[in-house]
Amino acid sequence: MSELVLGVVGWGRLGTAVHDLARAEGHEVRVYASRTLPNPRTEAAPDVVVDCSAPAALTGVAELCHHWRRPLVQCVSGLDEQQEAMLSRLGRSVAVVAAPNLTLGNYLLSRAMRCIAEVVTTMARAGVTGAVPEAAVFERHPARKAHRPSTTAVQLSGLWTSLTEHEVSDVASLRAGDSVSDHELRLGWDGQSLALMHTVGSMRTAAAGAIGIAAAATHLPVGVHHAHDVFDQMLAVMGGDGGKDQR
Amino acid sequence: MSELVLGVVGWGRLGTAVHDLARAEGHEVRVYASRTLPNPRTEAAPDVVVDCSAPAALTGVAELCHHWRRPLVQCVSGLDEQQEAMLSRLGRSVAVVAAPNLTLGNYLLSRAMRCIAEVVTTMARAGVTGAVPEAAVFERHPARKAHRPSTTAVQLSGLWTSLTEHEVSDVASLRAGDSVSDHELRLGWDGQSLALMHTVGSMRTAAAGAIGIAAAATHLPVGVHHAHDVFDQMLAVMGGDGGKDQR
Amino acid sequence: MSELVLGVVGWGRLGTAVHDLARAEGHEVRVYASRTLPNPRTEAAPDVVVDCSAPAALTGVAELCHHWRRPLVQCVSGLDEQQEAMLSRLGRSVAVVAAPNLTLGNYLLSRAMRCIAEVVTTMARAGVTGAVPEAAVFERHPARKAHRPSTTAVQLSGLWTSLTEHEVSDVASLRAGDSVSDHELRLGWDGQSLALMHTVGSMRTAAAGAIGIAAAATHLPVGVHHAHDVFDQMLAVMGGDGGKDQR
Amino acid sequence: MSELVLGVVGWGRLGTAVHDLARAEGHEVRVYASRTLPNPRTEAAPDVVVDCSAPAALTGVAELCHHWRRPLVQCVSGLDEQQEAMLSRLGRSVAVVAAPNLTLGNYLLSRAMRCIAEVVTTMARAGVTGAVPEAAVFERHPARKAHRPSTTAVQLSGLWTSLTEHEVSDVASLRAGDSVSDHELRLGWDGQSLALMHTVGSMRTAAAGAIGIAAAATHLPVGVHHAHDVFDQMLAVMGGDGGKDQR
Repeated sequence: MSELVLGVVGWGRLGTAVHDLARAEGHEVRVYASRTLPNPRTEAAPDVVVDCSAPAALTGVAELCHHWRRPLVQCVSGLDEQQEAMLSRLGRSVAVVAAPNLTLGNYLLSRAMRCIAEVVTTMARAGVTGAVPEAAVFERHPARKAHRPSTTAVQLSGLWTSLTEHEVSDVASLRAGDSVSDHELRLGWDGQSLALMHTVGSMRTAAAGAIGIAAAATHLPVGVHHAHDVFDQMLAVMGGDGGKDQR
Repeated sequence: MSELVLGVVGWGRLGTAVHDLARAEGHEVRVYASRTLPNPRTEAAPDVVVDCSAPAALTGVAELCHHWRRPLVQCVSGLDEQQEAMLSRLGRSVAVVAAPNLTLGNYLLSRAMRCIAEVVTTMARAGVTGAVPEAAVFERHPARKAHRPSTTAVQLSGLWTSLTEHEVSDVASLRAGDSVSDHELRLGWDGQSLALMHTVGSMRTAAAGAIGIAAAATHLPVGVHHAHDVFDQMLAVMGGDGGKDQR
Repeated sequence: MSELVLGVVGWGRLGTAVHDLARAEGHEVRVYASRTLPNPRTEAAPDVVVDCSAPAALTGVAELCHHWRRPLVQCVSGLDEQQEAMLSRLGRSVAVVAAPNLTLGNYLLSRAMRCIAEVVTTMARAGVTGAVPEAAVFERHPARKAHRPSTTAVQLSGLWTSLTEHEVSDVASLRAGDSVSDHELRLGWDGQSLALMHTVGSMRTAAAGAIGIAAAATHLPVGVHHAHDVFDQMLAVMGGDGGKDQR
Repeated sequence: MSELVLGVVGWGRLGTAVHDLARAEGHEVRVYASRTLPNPRTEAAPDVVVDCSAPAALTGVAELCHHWRRPLVQCVSGLDEQQEAMLSRLGRSVAVVAAPNLTLGNYLLSRAMRCIAEVVTTMARAGVTGAVPEAAVFERHPARKAHRPSTTAVQLSGLWTSLTEHEVSDVASLRAGDSVSDHELRLGWDGQSLALMHTVGSMRTAAAGAIGIAAAATHLPVGVHHAHDVFDQMLAVMGGDGGKDQR
């Protein structure tokens, strides 16, 4: 990974972690406070903008990226519909990566879910009764996280439904305990269950994902991309056919 | 699934559960006590033999299947090397399914492990440091289960090593709690972890797997097959290409 | 425990389990459907009434107990304030045991919580900073359980607050998985955590608690009693001073 | 807590954490490498010695404390019988605190176990069948921890046996995952279970316990004391009668 100029919005936990790690990895980092964003006409553009602030900053951040014609890695979760629409509009002029969860483990959890869903829906279509399990998503974040459920939990739940055409029975949230987060997919059949549990213990883990995706974003075409699709493409490049399960 | 004549060896928990469920599903079931196996010359052959007894019975069970020319579903775990060799020899004359774990959940756990291993080894080969996690396997069975670790845990551990070329850090066993079993794969990276946890709460779950595999075994070619390969083939038949992850 | 005549209201899961177990233990059991309660003037009174039906039946059940002058073990959870007030009024004429959770494990979880709260509040009063942990309660019931959080979870949370004068950070509910229930108290300090997790896997467990409390209720004075206070008294009788921690 | 002069043996993880935290709290700290212990005739004595090194250093450490007539807080786990005997001999001349686990959470887990054991043994003595649960202990430490099971797990298991006169069904160890450790007591009855799970995520947590116990040790009489007895006494001093469960 060659050196980047990273523009980071927000001095919160994630912004600080991205700053610290990117500096340690030899990148140039410019952190912008979300309330005093730079003037894109007078301030030189970074290679990519990583938004680690809050939903309210999105209007200004989108303007920045649009004027600079620089890709945006959007790490803020809890966007409302209007803000999602704003991302879509921005995606007409630059590459936007929607990245509410930046960790390898979340990507692997989603991949494993796809793999399981593939088997059980094949069985169901072949007439095996009871093949599709009851599914539920549980997530935990520290008490200071206000909105619930987390965007990651909503996406896991939505992915399950799109893969299996079955709604999850519940998406539950607990606000307690340490940083950073737990996300759990619970699958239950008659007489057995399978749980996939992802725990992030360090903000540095999310920061590493953000930097990796920011580097990839500089090569992405205009449009809105999901972080997992970017991971898919990175793997395909790495492995030739590495994005596919080869068994 | 058309009606079968099932020969079940052993009146233990699993044998009894297979008997009860197979009867309820309309199959004919003959249960043989492991110490007084029938004479294959005078007793009519079932369609398939399901061994639910103990390692010590294997010599007699193998003779039965060889004389009857009937497939064997071998559900007994904890076989030693000599007994594994006996299965291989039997595999020259009939179809043998090595099935120490008969549950859908165990199959899905293995599939998910393959899917995850594929990603992390692709990353590692591309030079991403720290992509392959520390892996460990934990299993729990009730206190009455003597040998440890379980064959299923050993196989999960071996599968991880064969997929990633990394040894697991530990295979740990706890002997306590209720029937039937827990098996857990723990993956740890710097700052995050992913656990896959399979719990079987009912012997009926294993029995359902045994009957499904027994039905499939009547169509298998001579040779030793692993239960998961049989599941793979069943899925391929069900889905056309359903045995492959299509994403 | 001598033989009882148990009047059970409701033919649901708990009512059926109480009926089956009480019969097996040699008690006489009369089950009343909640919509067609008997006429207390013409029907002979049982020794004790165990209400396993639903909040809506309470008016009729309270009338029954009042006229019969027989104790009520109230196992229904999710009562509203008006229904709680009805229990209080009934407690003027007969013994009422409020028993939303009838299991030994729930009692032990509460006892352990008291024991822990005693230590940390003593430390806090002595000026040790950070001694009182962040507390949270998590509960899980199958998807068919409508109301959330469970009465048991609310009581655990309320007990923590009354013991420590600290609010819990969250009471979270998941509706998924098997019968019967999980209840978990999570305590978190800087750098360490302690979780107490109670799992009930069989309705028979709750039924056993109901029968034990019903037997005790026949000796209780008029008034409203909490199931845990009844356990305390049963232990005090058993052990002399067994209700107190003697260390 | 007034300022102490702490002598710390060993520059490992715990020794370093004790050094850093004690300095931050305003104590004077002298760290001795376990292979080049000071000469007690020429080097001034600290107020208390905290041994954070390894079993092999015990002979030298015991000599130091004996000559200095200073209390020893022994944090090293995995001592053999001979080394335990050495501690006993040292306990004739100075106060020795055997402290293989220094955390508040471990103390609270043991207190909760006592509280639960008190109830179930009272029930068992009164003739309630099935009151005493099957118990098992599970512990996890990172792969680098060589000996298994941990001393803490052995002590939890021994405490259960001494309280209930029942052996635990298993003490299981997993060597994987992050620092510092998990210890879990699993109790199982017919149809329900209760688990108490203590997780330490930071070496600073253990260091805080070590410093607290070291301060207390300067007031202890000659003899060998268990860390939990010291906690009991500290609580009794704090609360008047706070060391007892007052319910």
